[in-house]
Amino acid sequence: MRVLALLDGTLADPDAPLIRVDDLGLVRGDGVFETILVVDGEPRELGPHLDRLARSAAMLDLPEPDRAAFERVVGLVLDTWAGDSEMALKLVYTRGVEGGDGTPTGFALGMGISPKVMAQRAEGIAAVTLDRGVEPGLADRAPWLLLGAKSLSYAVNMAALREAERRGAAEVVFTTSSGSVLEGPTSTLILARGRRLTTPPSELGILPGTTQAALFRAAAREGWTTEVAPIDVADLYSADGVLLVSSVRKITRVHTLDGKALPDSADLHAELAALYESEY
Amino acid sequence: MRVLALLDGTLADPDAPLIRVDDLGLVRGDGVFETILVVDGEPRELGPHLDRLARSAAMLDLPEPDRAAFERVVGLVLDTWAGDSEMALKLVYTRGVEGGDGTPTGFALGMGISPKVMAQRAEGIAAVTLDRGVEPGLADRAPWLLLGAKSLSYAVNMAALREAERRGAAEVVFTTSSGSVLEGPTSTLILARGRRLTTPPSELGILPGTTQAALFRAAAREGWTTEVAPIDVADLYSADGVLLVSSVRKITRVHTLDGKALPDSADLHAELAALYESEY
Repeated sequence: MRVLALLDGTLADPDAPLIRVDDLGLVRGDGVFETILVVDGEPRELGPHLDRLARSAAMLDLPEPDRAAFERVVGLVLDTWAGDSEMALKLVYTRGVEGGDGTPTGFALGMGISPKVMAQRAEGIAAVTLDRGVEPGLADRAPWLLLGAKSLSYAVNMAALREAERRGAAEVVFTTSSGSVLEGPTSTLILARGRRLTTPPSELGILPGTTQAALFRAAAREGWTTEVAPIDVADLYSADGVLLVSSVRKITRVHTLDGKALPDSADLHAELAALYESEY
Repeated sequence: MRVLALLDGTLADPDAPLIRVDDLGLVRGDGVFETILVVDGEPRELGPHLDRLARSAAMLDLPEPDRAAFERVVGLVLDTWAGDSEMALKLVYTRGVEGGDGTPTGFALGMGISPKVMAQRAEGIAAVTLDRGVEPGLADRAPWLLLGAKSLSYAVNMAALREAERRGAAEVVFTTSSGSVLEGPTSTLILARGRRLTTPPSELGILPGTTQAALFRAAAREGWTTEVAPIDVADLYSADGVLLVSSVRKITRVHTLDGKALPDSADLHAELAALYESEY
């Protein structure tokens, strides 16, 4: 099942053509998005997701998203949803049509969670490291590179995932050319060691994670140490656990990196997954 | 005036919604494009443009574009066009809808040339240099970064142009962090010195230019030396002329770089613009 609501507050058929061929979201990847997990009708981290949508939009010099309008269409999709207990809710916001009056295109699309993601949550994943071609300092020095913005220009993220598949893996850990860990193409990386959780700093040009923030809140409440600090690829092999987290995949453990098995983190993963759930 | 033809060979209303909200071209910038100049009903460099579309598609692991189908829709747009003598003809090819049967989305959209581009062709432009954050060797080492593919993920290119506007300029010369010249966000850079034309190597991760190739052909025929070689930013200030060339802008001279006036290249520009036209 899928439910689509347009930013003007109307429901629409998700299988119908609704976007013009000259929408800048299509022809220039010029827009931003968020994907929110909804469980039993409750959107998780809606506020942080809308905050991040606004931050991404500002990085792209888009008009500020109408937060109340997005909240309304989220509500409309939730009220209309009659599918599974979990839904992935995508918010999309583009610059509108080329040469138009500047009215952005916006919509919210609710979808079920794929069986593949469900399996990955339970069983973990194999990942590969891939060079993202950015160095520390670049994001600050060159804001026009939009590092850390969740833009619609995700062709590189998708190409990296295909490269992972070619290498027999399901996911990617992006690194700098000098071997510093960044993030996944659609996820945040967290390293666990003892009762300490570490995630790389967003100053490296990576997206601040809503799920990572929720897990860190829950873990800190239970006495874990949480920190934002640089991580080297070598650290991943010696950690107790390596996690790729995102709204839809929740807390997913990496069991194999670049073809090498990582230490078994099944118990650790179960503990952290439960911690994350305790936030809701 | 605008004319739209879909890849299935039908004409469509360019102002009507025709793309689904789950088209991967929209939600992931996952597709490729070309823009072709048409003059008096004759598309310029159609073969090289279709070659490059196929090369970009291969870099994104897209199904090979149906060349005959694209040639048909180009013909359909040309036959239907009743606008000015010049047309910008955009070809778009996306991965199709998410979770669909893999059928790509494709169309050809013919549009007039904006007065702004017409003025820039005649008067030249001010440009700024902006760091593209890539180093030599990266394109070869990390093909998943899609450097040199003309993908729909152009948010960075658009952000760079907005940064240029903020700096009082109309265009951008992308550079490596170490000051080597790359290309413009939607154009190829050519440097002229004496009777020698130089353009940076595509191995740097830049798009091979169709207009640059046409100008080099014409110039070589008239006894110019043409070469593909690295260019440093400092070289731009000492050159006889700096050109940003593309299908729609043709041969456009840069008269100001980072706020500094470059040597007057009006006569040189007129000679090279005429050389380019002599190809058709």
